[in-house]
Amino acid sequence: MGHRLFVLNGPNLNRLGRREPGVYGHVTLAEIEQRCRHVAGELDFDLFFAQSNAEGQLIDWLHQADNDAAAVVINPAGLSYRSVAIHDALRALRQPTVEVHLTNVFGREPVYREPLTSSAVSGVIAGLGAAGYELAIRGIATMLAEPGP
Amino acid sequence: MGHRLFVLNGPNLNRLGRREPGVYGHVTLAEIEQRCRHVAGELDFDLFFAQSNAEGQLIDWLHQADNDAAAVVINPAGLSYRSVAIHDALRALRQPTVEVHLTNVFGREPVYREPLTSSAVSGVIAGLGAAGYELAIRGIATMLAEPGP
Amino acid sequence: MGHRLFVLNGPNLNRLGRREPGVYGHVTLAEIEQRCRHVAGELDFDLFFAQSNAEGQLIDWLHQADNDAAAVVINPAGLSYRSVAIHDALRALRQPTVEVHLTNVFGREPVYREPLTSSAVSGVIAGLGAAGYELAIRGIATMLAEPGP
Amino acid sequence: MGHRLFVLNGPNLNRLGRREPGVYGHVTLAEIEQRCRHVAGELDFDLFFAQSNAEGQLIDWLHQADNDAAAVVINPAGLSYRSVAIHDALRALRQPTVEVHLTNVFGREPVYREPLTSSAVSGVIAGLGAAGYELAIRGIATMLAEPGP
Amino acid sequence: MGHRLFVLNGPNLNRLGRREPGVYGHVTLAEIEQRCRHVAGELDFDLFFAQSNAEGQLIDWLHQADNDAAAVVINPAGLSYRSVAIHDALRALRQPTVEVHLTNVFGREPVYREPLTSSAVSGVIAGLGAAGYELAIRGIATMLAEPGP
Amino acid sequence: MGHRLFVLNGPNLNRLGRREPGVYGHVTLAEIEQRCRHVAGELDFDLFFAQSNAEGQLIDWLHQADNDAAAVVINPAGLSYRSVAIHDALRALRQPTVEVHLTNVFGREPVYREPLTSSAVSGVIAGLGAAGYELAIRGIATMLAEPGP
Amino acid sequence: MGHRLFVLNGPNLNRLGRREPGVYGHVTLAEIEQRCRHVAGELDFDLFFAQSNAEGQLIDWLHQADNDAAAVVINPAGLSYRSVAIHDALRALRQPTVEVHLTNVFGREPVYREPLTSSAVSGVIAGLGAAGYELAIRGIATMLAEPGP
Amino acid sequence: MGHRLFVLNGPNLNRLGRREPGVYGHVTLAEIEQRCRHVAGELDFDLFFAQSNAEGQLIDWLHQADNDAAAVVINPAGLSYRSVAIHDALRALRQPTVEVHLTNVFGREPVYREPLTSSAVSGVIAGLGAAGYELAIRGIATMLAEPGP
Amino acid sequence: MGHRLFVLNGPNLNRLGRREPGVYGHVTLAEIEQRCRHVAGELDFDLFFAQSNAEGQLIDWLHQADNDAAAVVINPAGLSYRSVAIHDALRALRQPTVEVHLTNVFGREPVYREPLTSSAVSGVIAGLGAAGYELAIRGIATMLAEPGP
Amino acid sequence: MGHRLFVLNGPNLNRLGRREPGVYGHVTLAEIEQRCRHVAGELDFDLFFAQSNAEGQLIDWLHQADNDAAAVVINPAGLSYRSVAIHDALRALRQPTVEVHLTNVFGREPVYREPLTSSAVSGVIAGLGAAGYELAIRGIATMLAEPGP
Amino acid sequence: MGHRLFVLNGPNLNRLGRREPGVYGHVTLAEIEQRCRHVAGELDFDLFFAQSNAEGQLIDWLHQADNDAAAVVINPAGLSYRSVAIHDALRALRQPTVEVHLTNVFGREPVYREPLTSSAVSGVIAGLGAAGYELAIRGIATMLAEPGP
Amino acid sequence: MGHRLFVLNGPNLNRLGRREPGVYGHVTLAEIEQRCRHVAGELDFDLFFAQSNAEGQLIDWLHQADNDAAAVVINPAGLSYRSVAIHDALRALRQPTVEVHLTNVFGREPVYREPLTSSAVSGVIAGLGAAGYELAIRGIATMLAEPGP
Repeated sequence: MGHRLFVLNGPNLNRLGRREPGVYGHVTLAEIEQRCRHVAGELDFDLFFAQSNAEGQLIDWLHQADNDAAAVVINPAGLSYRSVAIHDALRALRQPTVEVHLTNVFGREPVYREPLTSSAVSGVIAGLGAAGYELAIRGIATMLAEPGP
Repeated sequence: MGHRLFVLNGPNLNRLGRREPGVYGHVTLAEIEQRCRHVAGELDFDLFFAQSNAEGQLIDWLHQADNDAAAVVINPAGLSYRSVAIHDALRALRQPTVEVHLTNVFGREPVYREPLTSSAVSGVIAGLGAAGYELAIRGIATMLAEPGP
Repeated sequence: MGHRLFVLNGPNLNRLGRREPGVYGHVTLAEIEQRCRHVAGELDFDLFFAQSNAEGQLIDWLHQADNDAAAVVINPAGLSYRSVAIHDALRALRQPTVEVHLTNVFGREPVYREPLTSSAVSGVIAGLGAAGYELAIRGIATMLAEPGP
Repeated sequence: MGHRLFVLNGPNLNRLGRREPGVYGHVTLAEIEQRCRHVAGELDFDLFFAQSNAEGQLIDWLHQADNDAAAVVINPAGLSYRSVAIHDALRALRQPTVEVHLTNVFGREPVYREPLTSSAVSGVIAGLGAAGYELAIRGIATMLAEPGP
Repeated sequence: MGHRLFVLNGPNLNRLGRREPGVYGHVTLAEIEQRCRHVAGELDFDLFFAQSNAEGQLIDWLHQADNDAAAVVINPAGLSYRSVAIHDALRALRQPTVEVHLTNVFGREPVYREPLTSSAVSGVIAGLGAAGYELAIRGIATMLAEPGP
Repeated sequence: MGHRLFVLNGPNLNRLGRREPGVYGHVTLAEIEQRCRHVAGELDFDLFFAQSNAEGQLIDWLHQADNDAAAVVINPAGLSYRSVAIHDALRALRQPTVEVHLTNVFGREPVYREPLTSSAVSGVIAGLGAAGYELAIRGIATMLAEPGP
Repeated sequence: MGHRLFVLNGPNLNRLGRREPGVYGHVTLAEIEQRCRHVAGELDFDLFFAQSNAEGQLIDWLHQADNDAAAVVINPAGLSYRSVAIHDALRALRQPTVEVHLTNVFGREPVYREPLTSSAVSGVIAGLGAAGYELAIRGIATMLAEPGP
Repeated sequence: MGHRLFVLNGPNLNRLGRREPGVYGHVTLAEIEQRCRHVAGELDFDLFFAQSNAEGQLIDWLHQADNDAAAVVINPAGLSYRSVAIHDALRALRQPTVEVHLTNVFGREPVYREPLTSSAVSGVIAGLGAAGYELAIRGIATMLAEPGP
Repeated sequence: MGHRLFVLNGPNLNRLGRREPGVYGHVTLAEIEQRCRHVAGELDFDLFFAQSNAEGQLIDWLHQADNDAAAVVINPAGLSYRSVAIHDALRALRQPTVEVHLTNVFGREPVYREPLTSSAVSGVIAGLGAAGYELAIRGIATMLAEPGP
Repeated sequence: MGHRLFVLNGPNLNRLGRREPGVYGHVTLAEIEQRCRHVAGELDFDLFFAQSNAEGQLIDWLHQADNDAAAVVINPAGLSYRSVAIHDALRALRQPTVEVHLTNVFGREPVYREPLTSSAVSGVIAGLGAAGYELAIRGIATMLAEPGP
Repeated sequence: MGHRLFVLNGPNLNRLGRREPGVYGHVTLAEIEQRCRHVAGELDFDLFFAQSNAEGQLIDWLHQADNDAAAVVINPAGLSYRSVAIHDALRALRQPTVEVHLTNVFGREPVYREPLTSSAVSGVIAGLGAAGYELAIRGIATMLAEPGP
Repeated sequence: MGHRLFVLNGPNLNRLGRREPGVYGHVTLAEIEQRCRHVAGELDFDLFFAQSNAEGQLIDWLHQADNDAAAVVINPAGLSYRSVAIHDALRALRQPTVEVHLTNVFGREPVYREPLTSSAVSGVIAGLGAAGYELAIRGIATMLAEPGP
């Protein structure tokens, strides 16, 4: 099988579909996982998909990814804005990393406009909904195939 | 033929490949256009691909897009950060819009960290290099197929 | 029995009575729980009272509250100021929520003056000591009886 | 009769019920006074309830309170945000003081987010509507019974 | 007779003609009242024209206007910059409101550049001297005749 | 014939009526031109009315106005907020200049609240819709008739 | 008799001696008036000494001073920090004006550090207690005798 | 045996030696523990040395330290910058506390320049690498021997 | 002939001599071109001297310079302060670049104090009037002769 | 003889009379010294009057004052705004200290508006010209006679 | 003899023991020098220990250190916060440098919280009192023995 | 002989050639003096060239220049950013003054980007290395020959 890929999800994302559907839509995290598994299969990735409300757990997974994975897709959700610890864990990775946000956080309320973790990843995709995850995985595939400058 | 899609490029992008290759890589705008045409063909989009160093020209194209196009992909480059006029033109569009940046501007020098136009588009893709354009077009296809909340 | 009510307490509150008594007084969290149980009994609430030093645990409880509880009283303590994740979990609740602070944080040192989570709750009570919890429960009772605009 | 208690109301509160009911609800100041008189009776307070649009009048009442009253409940309304003079008058009181806001000002538009007078009172209650006044009176009763640290 | 129109003037405007004539010109408030009465007559408005140095008085007049007047023209003068109470009273009006400044405050010393009350009115006219009052009345007439979006 | 008057319009105003009608109303720029021509006729002005999306074109017109016109009315639209070049061109004019905004920009989203060009004109009219242009022309007539301090 | 001199006092100063004596000392306003009368007598000033908690009253007195007085000493107290209206009234005076603060406000809590009215007076004396009033009157005498640059 | 001493380590420090060695060097946390045990032995401290990626765990250890330990050395790593909860737990300790950073955070990228927890400890040592831990333990020994002012 | 040298001038500079002569003096752009041609002749430069009010035109010339010129002298005028696009075009040049301002912008009104483009050039000369152009050309000659660190 | 009094003057004050007389007047430092000696004689002070352009010299004198003087009058001039070292030396004095500024720095250009040293002295006198020194000495006499709260 | 080591002390440190002993303790600089000499002897350093109130003198010593010394320990005291010149001199040193503060400046009043010089040294030790000097010397010894990354 | 010209150099410039040569190059201050003497000779200036690390010495020289010199060239180095005292001394000069920086400080680290003294001189030259001094002297010659507006 192909490269191992981590797709990590931060706090409250387990509530997708139920949490402010007017903002985040009706898609559930299980459906997102389905779509990711589909693309991962197409591109021959070995997918690890997980969610946690705990910063420490997400850091542990990022450490594992440093050992085991070829790349990381992460939606740090509410931890995007203030967690220097996740920022540090992402920054220490030498693998390609893509941060995904379901909504276009750059056009939302001030509290969501400046994700700190975005400065520690390779790329950012925001506002494309669940499709953002699929595009991130496709982007990862390209980055592994053609490393940038 | 399918939906008409505008892919617009702002100032200095005509210099890609030659402009600070250590930052932006060696890909040229012609090569990016090639890759966009390939994906657009696959997804049955009628592609208009253009570049200008003039804010007024980009605004004119956005007005045309409002009349003619189903969606817009735009890399406003240096105009991303200060142009309220392009921000306003994007904001007035009811079509899906995706902003692309070749580099991860959110992790670069302060002058590049707060793109103003990002708050007026549907989605943002940054740091995925030329592949970002392809992903934006794929994302547009999804947005047209499954409108969000 | 009546409505189920969650009263949640954040980091360091397990140390009340011992932690800076000149600032926080000599009351313990067990005594606060006693007073809450007394008012909850009077108003026929089914009380869940808990404390954790872990942000993830508090988020889990807020998710449970979304399923099970009619309302939430929360003292996020040190997490009030920086946790966008708890802010998001509170914001997603459709039930009445009241944030309690033992001290008047708005008149304290700068680090305590701008609780972020306060912007995501229905109401805020600060500076009334342990009585603040009782008042919050009474306030919840009123909010459930007479929904506002 | 019991302790004398001042309940003071700032500018525009005489328009309650008529002023932006989508924000402040349909309750009138006369109804709030009724509810306060009811709780005050229960707790044996001698109530002085008043409203003024003039900063100077509110300061005069605070000076009287310093001479005559056991405690003060105040909703400084629009004067909360800029009046150092009311802040000073409150700060000079040695009696318990509770500031009440009908709406949760901490989650509203920026102009309402940082009440200056809040730093000069003993406690703050916001976002609990008219019930906030009743809770403030109950809180005062507790503070007079069990002085804090 | 036609619609009732309030024209209200804030602190120090009773000193016009004498107060820093190099900045505010030699026109007096009585002359401005004359010009307003002339235009009001032409447009069939029943004019109430008044000045006060007291914030509370201006708020009282705004409350009367809410009951009696079809529209308000106001020059809050020095109270424009810091009075949340007048801001609130203006914001609560459903009638058209126009704020007038004799000088172009947006190009003056920093203390005058950000009038807070301007965010609570329908329209703003600044820097057109005494003629600004006349134009405001004409603008009010148009707004009553053709309500905007 | 009378004085020559320039009425200049900035980016996106050619889209009026179609551009965010919930914000800007249904009036078109052609209709505004009609209303301006009507007032200009009444006041015996020789009107030049134009629109451009290009900053450079607007600056060229301002230079022509310096040579040919008695006064300028300008709605710089999105260029109001960041264009030091238009600010400089306006500042260099010795003729009366009035800036018009259709909406009350001082009460809108932060990006629109601080028009830079406003500090370089004689007067500002905002929030009075299309009527604002007519009032500006009337104001210009008064300014030419009675020069200020 | 000699020059007429106004000594004006703002909000809460009628409470001197009783208001936070640890900060403001035990002197009363009556005693300060005594000391002022003594120095005024020595320097042949006709003294008007007054206090008000109302901004409007203070502005009225400043307008009278413009007509009647040779100079003004003012302690605007809590109105020093936010009252643009008093700032404007002071700025309009052509007579010498000295602002007095009993405490050294420049070294106190942030809310007191930037008196706005200080920028509109001729001179400032702070932190010298009641003696500050006497020195201000002496300073006024010198300013009337030897006008500065 | 002597005093009990806690040496606590925050997120990502378990990755030392592997994490950005160009920044943090090649030393591992196990080697740092070795060096700490050596100095602790020399100075007769009973050492508890631990690491966690979870904020809640670190707070629990700080509570234990309050009960059991004579002093605390802590490297909060990424939690230094935003965790009010750890700041509060440190602030509540009456024992000597020293914060250690391997790199000189005060001269690094802006995100690392203002450690919040530094304001809640007795002392800070930064930029001295692994030796910083040893010096912190020596400093603790001195503080226990000669309490400061 | 010698090296090719571009001297580029931004918006409003075509109005020199007529534009605010109290600030910019009476020299015209034609006279400045004369002086530049004289020095260029002396130092054997092949001079291209041009002015435009359009950002896009200036960017086009900078791209040409990248192909054709040995160095660039530029006075971006009003575009200095906000144009990230010109900043980017300058930054991409590997040739020596000197920015010239006729006035000492660092000591002028705030809007002129922080030229953004200054951070993207090799050197800056401000406040030396028309002579600044001559000195810039001499400086370029030195830079080409003795490359810096 | 009486108390020893230091009157210290900072950089550029040796140029008084010659330095920007439109701002600072025509009085020289020698004349100020004369006036100080006269008042000091009247009040029986033993005066040490000195000026230096060197921060270190002023600190040395402040140290001597701590040993020898009953009080200090200081005009730190340009060092008022940034010198934490003089601020610290003043803060360490237990004697009364008065800071004098010839002009009303609180109403001048921004660079002069926030004197840092003002927060470390007992009192401040600004804008009263040379008379400010005399008043400061009289104020010192009062402070020594009647110590404040 | 061993390496030459400079220990430099900034303004007011000659007053230690006498200067605000409640803050800085009763230790004198002579006693600190004694302790430094003791550790220096143990570690075979040739110690130069000096103090000056003059910025220029401290810069001269830093220049000498660049020629003669293996390392520098410095307590810049009040110059830490604003002296770019000392910052530059420290930054130019290639030897190890450690900044010492007796108190934990990071938890003190705002004026002391952001030492500028800290960004130019190798390491920082604060809040460990006189022992901080000894630890700094020990830390220097380690840095010379085991150079970092 | 001709006009007397002062060329003054601030802290650390005596270390040129040795101080961070990757930033400042290998030229020494003696070589710069040579180049200045050469140009001064050509233009018939009587040159005084000096360097000091002490702010007070630089101020003394500026005072001498006011008496003796026709113009001043100054590189205040690290004192550029915080010295209000040098700013004041420069501001008081009526002679032409040019500030020189070897590097383009406007494009360097934040600490160097806003030289305060630049606002008090006639002109600024930055980033042209040692040649900047020569150009400054040539610029001075022009300024003396053709005084500006």
